[in-house]
Amino acid sequence: MQQLTSAWLRASGHLANSVLEANRATLAALGLSDGDQSGEVELEPSVESVAYDDSDWTETRTVDASENINPGDTVTFSKTISDEDVRAFAKVSGDTNRLHLDETFAEGTRFGGRIVHGTLVSGLISAALARLPGVTVYLSQDMRFLNPVQIGSRLTAEVEVVEALAEDRFRLSTTVTNADGEAVIEGEAVVLVDSAPDHVE
Amino acid sequence: MQQLTSAWLRASGHLANSVLEANRATLAALGLSDGDQSGEVELEPSVESVAYDDSDWTETRTVDASENINPGDTVTFSKTISDEDVRAFAKVSGDTNRLHLDETFAEGTRFGGRIVHGTLVSGLISAALARLPGVTVYLSQDMRFLNPVQIGSRLTAEVEVVEALAEDRFRLSTTVTNADGEAVIEGEAVVLVDSAPDHVE
Repeated sequence: MQQLTSAWLRASGHLANSVLEANRATLAALGLSDGDQSGEVELEPSVESVAYDDSDWTETRTVDASENINPGDTVTFSKTISDEDVRAFAKVSGDTNRLHLDETFAEGTRFGGRIVHGTLVSGLISAALARLPGVTVYLSQDMRFLNPVQIGSRLTAEVEVVEALAEDRFRLSTTVTNADGEAVIEGEAVVLVDSAPDHVE
Repeated sequence: MQQLTSAWLRASGHLANSVLEANRATLAALGLSDGDQSGEVELEPSVESVAYDDSDWTETRTVDASENINPGDTVTFSKTISDEDVRAFAKVSGDTNRLHLDETFAEGTRFGGRIVHGTLVSGLISAALARLPGVTVYLSQDMRFLNPVQIGSRLTAEVEVVEALAEDRFRLSTTVTNADGEAVIEGEAVVLVDSAPDHVE
């Protein structure tokens, strides 16, 4: 495994005591309600380490406490990637490749039109990992981009625990599939899962 | 190397003939001017496969034509990651991990405060790859997250061609460093570089 600095892996004794209040304020600022889900799966309780959900998003998971995570457990996360998402990702990352932004240019490429940034697609893997119980910290990610993703596609990321490693670390398989069930990204991640900070109920 | 569908790797004969016009319209819609650069490095000409630059961003590269890419060539891309960037990335990816969005919650974690999403940091690698001459297509990316990134950090991605592979593919080392020169991501990418579509001057 990679070397990490002591600061990166330092455990903190500082516990938050007003997470629920901060949570409500965050949701109100975003114009969202807590645990808003329009899909077929309703999580009860919602994942406390996730600040908010959107009505377009759906998720499933097989484990509800960080101390119970075992090989075979899965989390899925589904989201539609819109044109607005692609343009916002270009701005925040600096990846203004015309293949993603300029239809006329993209028509002249091997894809015949604009496609979604691969790194934005991989963000759905991180979104699924964030829905593991506890606080998930990314240590590594390997991935192969297998198919292009058209703007407006609905994608599903599935992460499955493959191996429990020492020190609350886990190795997971990570796959993103399109609405036709084709894999667009395949790979593997290693994460560290801490307990969520305590909070006042 | 991974298996790719024929559609993914299909070369298109359709050439765009009004890229410059589309480019100007894109820039105007975004309120940006062509090749806007405030940094110490001015690229002449700007990379034609990139739709726009921002005044905060700086970039360097050692090669100006896709047919001249060789081992040892490098591209760098630097950008500050703001709180607004982190919140926008959460929304577009669905990764609403409180560690990135909720200061009170994040104070109780091992990091003692909010940090930038690892996948958003990795977006700067893709931004650097996009600034290779020609149209860069991501085939794979491996990475290790070595250090946390505070909100507001200025980061630099450097990609260096390590090996020229068959069929216009290249293997590159990919590193993102913070303002103190510490590596925050290290890894390797494989990309395919096509010629940019022709356009009317």
